[in-house]
Amino acid sequence: MEIELRLPEEVKVFEANENDILINVIRNVGVHIDAPCNGSGTCGKCKVKLIEGKVGTIANGHRLTDEQSQQGFILACQSIVTSPIIVEVPKESILEVTHIRVEKRTHKDLEKYYNLREEFSREHDSMKNLSILNVQLDEPNLDDNISDVTRIKKFVAKELNNDHVQIGVFLLKKIPHVLRESAFNVSIIYTEEKGIIRIIDIRPQGDTQIYGVAVDIGTTSVSACLVDLNDDTILGEVSCANAQSKYGADVINRIVYSTKKNGLKNLKEAIVEESINPLINELCNNHKVKKEDILIFAASANTTMAHLLLGIHSDDLRKEPYIPAFTSTEDVDIRVDDIGLSLNKDALILISPSVASYVGGDISAGVIAAGMRESDENSILIDLGTNGEIVFGNRDFLMTCACSAGPAFEGGEISCGMRAANGAIEAVHIDPNTFVAELDIIGSCAPYGLCGSGIIDLISELKRVELIDPRGRFIKDKNTDRIHFDEYGIGRYIVARKKDYDLSGDIYITEVDIDNFIRAKAAVYSATYVLLSSLGLDFDMVSEIKVAGGIGSHINIDSAINIGLFPDIDKDKYAFIGNSSLTGSYMSLINKKAKEYIDDTANNMTYIELSVYPGYMDEFISASFIPHTDLVRFPTHNK
Amino acid sequence: MEIELRLPEEVKVFEANENDILINVIRNVGVHIDAPCNGSGTCGKCKVKLIEGKVGTIANGHRLTDEQSQQGFILACQSIVTSPIIVEVPKESILEVTHIRVEKRTHKDLEKYYNLREEFSREHDSMKNLSILNVQLDEPNLDDNISDVTRIKKFVAKELNNDHVQIGVFLLKKIPHVLRESAFNVSIIYTEEKGIIRIIDIRPQGDTQIYGVAVDIGTTSVSACLVDLNDDTILGEVSCANAQSKYGADVINRIVYSTKKNGLKNLKEAIVEESINPLINELCNNHKVKKEDILIFAASANTTMAHLLLGIHSDDLRKEPYIPAFTSTEDVDIRVDDIGLSLNKDALILISPSVASYVGGDISAGVIAAGMRESDENSILIDLGTNGEIVFGNRDFLMTCACSAGPAFEGGEISCGMRAANGAIEAVHIDPNTFVAELDIIGSCAPYGLCGSGIIDLISELKRVELIDPRGRFIKDKNTDRIHFDEYGIGRYIVARKKDYDLSGDIYITEVDIDNFIRAKAAVYSATYVLLSSLGLDFDMVSEIKVAGGIGSHINIDSAINIGLFPDIDKDKYAFIGNSSLTGSYMSLINKKAKEYIDDTANNMTYIELSVYPGYMDEFISASFIPHTDLVRFPTHNK
Repeated sequence: MEIELRLPEEVKVFEANENDILINVIRNVGVHIDAPCNGSGTCGKCKVKLIEGKVGTIANGHRLTDEQSQQGFILACQSIVTSPIIVEVPKESILEVTHIRVEKRTHKDLEKYYNLREEFSREHDSMKNLSILNVQLDEPNLDDNISDVTRIKKFVAKELNNDHVQIGVFLLKKIPHVLRESAFNVSIIYTEEKGIIRIIDIRPQGDTQIYGVAVDIGTTSVSACLVDLNDDTILGEVSCANAQSKYGADVINRIVYSTKKNGLKNLKEAIVEESINPLINELCNNHKVKKEDILIFAASANTTMAHLLLGIHSDDLRKEPYIPAFTSTEDVDIRVDDIGLSLNKDALILISPSVASYVGGDISAGVIAAGMRESDENSILIDLGTNGEIVFGNRDFLMTCACSAGPAFEGGEISCGMRAANGAIEAVHIDPNTFVAELDIIGSCAPYGLCGSGIIDLISELKRVELIDPRGRFIKDKNTDRIHFDEYGIGRYIVARKKDYDLSGDIYITEVDIDNFIRAKAAVYSATYVLLSSLGLDFDMVSEIKVAGGIGSHINIDSAINIGLFPDIDKDKYAFIGNSSLTGSYMSLINKKAKEYIDDTANNMTYIELSVYPGYMDEFISASFIPHTDLVRFPTHNK
Repeated sequence: MEIELRLPEEVKVFEANENDILINVIRNVGVHIDAPCNGSGTCGKCKVKLIEGKVGTIANGHRLTDEQSQQGFILACQSIVTSPIIVEVPKESILEVTHIRVEKRTHKDLEKYYNLREEFSREHDSMKNLSILNVQLDEPNLDDNISDVTRIKKFVAKELNNDHVQIGVFLLKKIPHVLRESAFNVSIIYTEEKGIIRIIDIRPQGDTQIYGVAVDIGTTSVSACLVDLNDDTILGEVSCANAQSKYGADVINRIVYSTKKNGLKNLKEAIVEESINPLINELCNNHKVKKEDILIFAASANTTMAHLLLGIHSDDLRKEPYIPAFTSTEDVDIRVDDIGLSLNKDALILISPSVASYVGGDISAGVIAAGMRESDENSILIDLGTNGEIVFGNRDFLMTCACSAGPAFEGGEISCGMRAANGAIEAVHIDPNTFVAELDIIGSCAPYGLCGSGIIDLISELKRVELIDPRGRFIKDKNTDRIHFDEYGIGRYIVARKKDYDLSGDIYITEVDIDNFIRAKAAVYSATYVLLSSLGLDFDMVSEIKVAGGIGSHINIDSAINIGLFPDIDKDKYAFIGNSSLTGSYMSLINKKAKEYIDDTANNMTYIELSVYPGYMDEFISASFIPHTDLVRFPTHNK
């Protein structure tokens, strides 16, 4: 039956079958409607407006306010096509893959990378992943009529004194042309792995355009940087949302979706076609680089993302005993085409190895950025993402665990939550008398929603001015028009009023949002605590806490401690190291020894499976308060 | 403009653009119109009948008789669309890919393979390409939670005492399912190459269905056999035409076509999608075998076919100094998907190495079937195909050369020529008084045309009864209605009269056909002669001549000697060994040592490039008579 879809910019009219679920129908015509809860009807992000006609409804928990329902909104994931309809899709229901905030990399930002590069080279040796041989080969004649490949192999084998020479199968197609165009005067670009020389590219001498792309594949966001392999400088860095988000906000929802028909295929396409390749295109366009000249692709990702990147069955990751299909790819000869990347088809692929099902290559790679193994002092690495990972240790040992924080830190499952893009409220100060909020907004434009750091600030402030209690419930009888209670008695605080900023609606936070956020922060805090107490240690023994993750550098430490997200230790012991996963990818891209260091890190980390760790649940519950049930742990907060 | 295409079985109506070449227009709608001369207008095979409308004509040599022109026939390759037309495509203008004669393999036929297998194993050792490990792996638990891949690798590495274990990237997707479906009780199938163990398949223990396919890729025909790898028995053998033929009858025409737009792509699709995969499908259906259970693909082909199979630029093969892009593929990690074969995606691919541009893997593989290296006596291998290859030598040395015989041996470029299919005249006896021909016809049905062995017989008989002179010209004033001369004075002999067999037309051979055939036989004879004389030897020193090639076993040796195709030595020294290329493929498929033997053969053959060999041209010209200008070389013939 006919569906008319009214989108922000266009109108689509098409046929759908009776009993199709509306969200699938809409996605099938290429509209990336957002559904972080993977169609379970709980997140409310996929709301659309029914203009004309009727739909059937799946009897699931609904997530719409009476007001929304009165306006005609329905949840696409809970609606079944039963007759021709006209549906309007509001802008906020469409997943915006691009337009995430991209740090304009100042020289100072890049220094982080370069300093780490220098430090590492000082402490360990350096070795490039790619080497180059320049040579004028003899031109063939009737007496010297060996094949092109044999000619190249003979030279390389002799030069490097190694007979195990492999030639990329795509390069093979190019060889006859390149040799003759260049009159056999060529540069041979190769890599050496386990005693085998693999020739990756051959080009006329003088063509020195060789690049690499380092990528961090997060559950919610994807970042990539383009590197000139001649001097390892970073030409640019870009980020976007992980387009898989529309199929589920966290790894569990993605895995569940992956088991559905075409699930694996759709997830792979989303991350490769809609996220990574567009980033590569953007970088190539911005810096006038040919995709064929990208000869290394280095990626760090959590274990689930790594599985989905390769289209590997990942259902066992979420079932006890939580077994990955693979942790390292070093013995699987993965090609560019196996992933579907738009770069040189013979390019070297480096994927940071995972430690376990919930501690991935992003952490193995992150440790190098945190420099934990270079110190005798105990330090902690907290990677704040949809999946929260914690590493504890020093030069002699490393322990790690993971917790599911959910997307709250990145604005997911929060009524007015959004990613750290323009319009996001990233800092809040509430006047204790008027209860009016003062806002810092990314892009200094009108506010559009709350990003992670803004939510941390907001909850901390609500607690400070005593608008909420330790359970995150709004205190009634406060003399303010900023707090409202809906028909179910659920309170909300208006952060930005529609009329003050001329918005389509108020920007607010509800008790449900605060609950979600408390669960996220409790998961991270209790995981960190349990990791140390499993060794009989506490936070006094920690000399440094490195905070990583996209939102990391924008968090207000005081607020984070006040809400009980971070342990209450000397603020000076905290350091933000930004996207440590991307930094690690970059290191593995430019330095073979760094790649080996990351592999070694993964092999030597002790993993603790919290989901079955005795006492973790109790810790989590005690931590599900602001800041905690055990206030002795938060002396600052009690001052 | 509208084109109506009247085909034997159906009518197609479609749009074409003005100035399109008709043959391309017809091919674009999926009709495999034949054009062995690659659209140069010389072979006349692409003739179609213009029923209505007009076409423009490319000013090229035409190949149609006045009679055909009067009937409204035009050459599709020489016609340009200028207005709407109705065209009829006769059956004979469409390339029949299938319906080549397939030897019904009797037990005796298979014995050839099996005897060779036994002999080889006696003289050399044997080793399978694939090995199997059966194991009950420990099931994972929370304390033993290594990844599936790590679990498998650890076991294999320990069992085989080798850490270099590689896992097929497609197998990786299967592993989690297989392990759990089989409760970790599995068979691991692997191959070992250069110290690296590559795991090709993992399956529940007890599933012992493992197969291989051996293929010979000829310029004109393709043959394949299905092998049960448990006991190396041949389950079946099938053949078909090489679908590339429509783009050119010989390798030179193919190479020229390959340089045109989409040329390489079309040629690769033709051989893979239209020839090899259909053969594999047929074998799998006939023998109830799953494609996924085909774990080895072994192919032998001439150098050009090997290039085109992989979609590799081959233009330099035909330009002095005739350099292949590659001869061996052992150092290019080629996957099933690189070729596009329909079998297990991680299957082992074995391609017999070439010696030079015009001596391919079919010859390296053929030598093992000829057993030349097992004898102290000198022997010759003559592989009669569109490309004719000759090998001479013994246990101590091997020399080889090649000549372009053209498709005449397989019925190409002969007015009434056809491949050895049903209806082909394969033997002829002419009554010296009545000049009427007595025919042996394949399939004992009505005659349809002449195949290679029939043409050899026919020319020999025409000479014997003195209807033609040594130059192949018809002798005038013979009192017979079997010989006619056309308006250009070109004579023809009627082999089978329309009225006697109720045919659509007479079956005849013209002086032009005989010329073509003489060129083919002269090329082979002179190449053989030059190869020996280059060593100062002659045919007396030869103890055996092995004749290989599809048409081989159907040739009448006397006739072949009488026309000067084969040297005039004792008939008993001749032996037909059939498709030695396919036999060699089979050997490499079942025995790793045989594969090494073939590689070694390719590396140790001395190649002579005839096209620049002094004296070859003179030899060729002297041989361009029936049987030869130097009759002393053909004593039998002079008796």
